[in-house]
Amino acid sequence: MAITLKEVAERAGVSRSAVSRTFTDGASVSDKMRRKVEKAASDLGYSPNALASSLTTGRTKLIGLVSNNFHNPIFLEVFDLFTRGLQDRGLRPLLVNLTDEINPENSVRMLRQYSVDGVVVASSTLPPNFAKAFRDAGVPVVHSFGRASSSPQVHVVGIDNTECGRMAARTLVERGYNHVGFMGGPQDATSTQDRYTGFMSEMSAHPKVKVSYSFAEAYSFDAGRREMLRLLRAAPAEAYFCGDDVLSIGALSAVDDSDLSCPNDVGIIGLNDMEMAQWENINLTTIHQPIRQIVTSSIELMVTMLDEPDRYPETRIFPCSVVERGTLRAQAN
Amino acid sequence: MAITLKEVAERAGVSRSAVSRTFTDGASVSDKMRRKVEKAASDLGYSPNALASSLTTGRTKLIGLVSNNFHNPIFLEVFDLFTRGLQDRGLRPLLVNLTDEINPENSVRMLRQYSVDGVVVASSTLPPNFAKAFRDAGVPVVHSFGRASSSPQVHVVGIDNTECGRMAARTLVERGYNHVGFMGGPQDATSTQDRYTGFMSEMSAHPKVKVSYSFAEAYSFDAGRREMLRLLRAAPAEAYFCGDDVLSIGALSAVDDSDLSCPNDVGIIGLNDMEMAQWENINLTTIHQPIRQIVTSSIELMVTMLDEPDRYPETRIFPCSVVERGTLRAQAN
Repeated sequence: MAITLKEVAERAGVSRSAVSRTFTDGASVSDKMRRKVEKAASDLGYSPNALASSLTTGRTKLIGLVSNNFHNPIFLEVFDLFTRGLQDRGLRPLLVNLTDEINPENSVRMLRQYSVDGVVVASSTLPPNFAKAFRDAGVPVVHSFGRASSSPQVHVVGIDNTECGRMAARTLVERGYNHVGFMGGPQDATSTQDRYTGFMSEMSAHPKVKVSYSFAEAYSFDAGRREMLRLLRAAPAEAYFCGDDVLSIGALSAVDDSDLSCPNDVGIIGLNDMEMAQWENINLTTIHQPIRQIVTSSIELMVTMLDEPDRYPETRIFPCSVVERGTLRAQAN
Repeated sequence: MAITLKEVAERAGVSRSAVSRTFTDGASVSDKMRRKVEKAASDLGYSPNALASSLTTGRTKLIGLVSNNFHNPIFLEVFDLFTRGLQDRGLRPLLVNLTDEINPENSVRMLRQYSVDGVVVASSTLPPNFAKAFRDAGVPVVHSFGRASSSPQVHVVGIDNTECGRMAARTLVERGYNHVGFMGGPQDATSTQDRYTGFMSEMSAHPKVKVSYSFAEAYSFDAGRREMLRLLRAAPAEAYFCGDDVLSIGALSAVDDSDLSCPNDVGIIGLNDMEMAQWENINLTTIHQPIRQIVTSSIELMVTMLDEPDRYPETRIFPCSVVERGTLRAQAN
């Protein structure tokens, strides 16, 4: 027979609420009270079980944290912020790696088995039908780093990638480059498509500047390096907007390896401003994506949805800005 | 009333075992059978619940994946390998971030609430009393990247850090350096202590070579950079064994920033051989730690322990080797 909370309370000579608070993360309870309750629980062999209690409360406090790019260092920051933020709320991340998954139904089945209270999709490259499949299964979903939309089908927290593309183009034009290039991430990612659209639309206002574009196979160092090596072999642009920071770092490596220098021979601007972008031996000029704010807001939205699962879907957009470092030449006067 | 597996089997006209296999990750079931079962389950509103069934089987298939360094890019590889490996076994990682945690009891309480089947501690810097606290709570524990010991108190899978220290020292001596330095990670990490011991013991056999040592505050880029900037200000060694790759990359940045070049002015050898070490703009000579094999073996050991929780603790050690790249001068003739 399982020991009940009531029995622990009686043995400790405290209220049931005090026992409950002792075993609830983040709840307030004095050290003295905690010691009393833990002693009684230990004497009786009582162990609070979040999963057993979930059968009555309907809450497991498990949140599926779904991602698919474990080769982009930005995600270490994202996982750090999500795990800490969820833990602070008494929630627990079940980390789901969808690197090789193409069928949303498998993921839905798995997350259902664990009765997760909600799912955070943390990816700009996972096809939107994953987030929709989770929603259709009746699970609260937040798509962090998802596509900004004026008619979102699930909650989206992220940036306006189209505007970022425009911002990158404006920045390159301001520096007086006469031939600029867009070196995007994988072409089927919505982030790549939107950054491309924004970049091209801004450049259409500058017909005198030559524009070229191409795409890397993934948001990874190797893909960025390979694509830039290819570009440098024949009439490269003077400066490139690379799809994100890890692509940019791969591109920098290609520039270096081709006995060229950055920004003297080729300029590069990235996107994300991940920790590594400010490392002095990388020193990447980039567009800052407010990762911390996006994660915090995603968690707040998830917490709200746990109480209001039918909440009307919203898009939350955070502004980006250029961070000046060493990979673009100075502004033209 | 919850729908039972038996009802689903009856409706689908199949065996209960077929229903069970359909909802078990990795179990073999034909597509036709799966469709039948899923149709019946969907008609009845049946959803297999791993957590509910855990109350009868005593198994949640949740594994606590505990770490404390989300600023070292090596851990993105570690998380990738662990999440994929556990998923392939039908297990699920509950990611626990102990960056700011100093009290093992809090972690034990939390992991108990989730009735995890086991805990993998993936860290060389988390104090050993965490792994012991999990073990004392009756949870199967594997300490990956933990301290090799001839009398392990918990299962340890990793490398012989003392031998790695010796290997680094031997390598520097072979290159003919006359003054070598040990620039370790945080001094309270067992990995730092063992690498230091091995390095110094090997150097004691080479009394003509000058040796100096110091420690960085963390296994992080910033800490490595700061410590190397300090070292370069006064009579630096000719070459350093830096505690790990991310410290080495920080040190490389400091060398570069001091208008020195590597390996001409200062040699550097790291440890880990993380993905980034082979990036062409880093190109770090380092000691390869077989991360993939360590993770695979840790998972195998965990799976075995789920059936034999009282298994006698063992240490599994994997050999390391020097990977020659561009940050040490060539071997002396």
